[in-house]
Amino acid sequence: MLTGKESRRIRRKGYCAERQLVKKLRRCGFESVRVPVSAPSSEPLPDVFAIKDETLLAFEVKAPNSEKAYFRRKQVEKLFEFLDMFDLCKRKLAIIAGKFPYKWVFKRIEKPDDYVLQKEERSNTSSSD
Amino acid sequence: MLTGKESRRIRRKGYCAERQLVKKLRRCGFESVRVPVSAPSSEPLPDVFAIKDETLLAFEVKAPNSEKAYFRRKQVEKLFEFLDMFDLCKRKLAIIAGKFPYKWVFKRIEKPDDYVLQKEERSNTSSSD
Repeated sequence: MLTGKESRRIRRKGYCAERQLVKKLRRCGFESVRVPVSAPSSEPLPDVFAIKDETLLAFEVKAPNSEKAYFRRKQVEKLFEFLDMFDLCKRKLAIIAGKFPYKWVFKRIEKPDDYVLQKEERSNTSSSD
Repeated sequence: MLTGKESRRIRRKGYCAERQLVKKLRRCGFESVRVPVSAPSSEPLPDVFAIKDETLLAFEVKAPNSEKAYFRRKQVEKLFEFLDMFDLCKRKLAIIAGKFPYKWVFKRIEKPDDYVLQKEERSNTSSSD
């Protein structure tokens, strides 16, 4: 169980990571938006999404203190549900993102499932530049 | 100034109206999503959006107790900013929606501005069916 103070700190870290990712994406020429309070709702919304030409990206973002970031299937499913809405976009990527201390890791995923990102693994998408 | 109880009641009413609109849109064949807590943030997100083929709709929703619903320019601007992201969509509509007691009014708007919806006015968009 988390105390109120701990859970506020985690939320603030998550918020900062998401803001940072949005800025990163804008620098890469994407239009990008952070969706506030996406997690607790059942709506099919990612934490962050981005669009450029015919490419749509949907991100689930974690900012753990430790070396691992855990993504639950239920949260990951929302990425695919969101992307599915946009038939128009030719290229649609679901990406889990871990903001570890001093390092981002991005992983493009192909299907809803439980995932673990490790700080030491390499990103498999070029969105990490 | 609103008491905590009053502002909770208003938020709950707004939430119910948005949920109802999402259902309405899904019945019309749109993919539709409610964006939780869109208002207090500065992100360019509508209260509700919907997509079908090449048509994208962005809604700002109010559920007043009185005969008038007021929409501030700042909130309305977000609809246009959101729609602007999706170059792909051929038809993009910004719509202000008032859920009055026993009656919805929908108005398609062409530019950011302050708007007032009156309970007795007629909708100018077919999304109201």
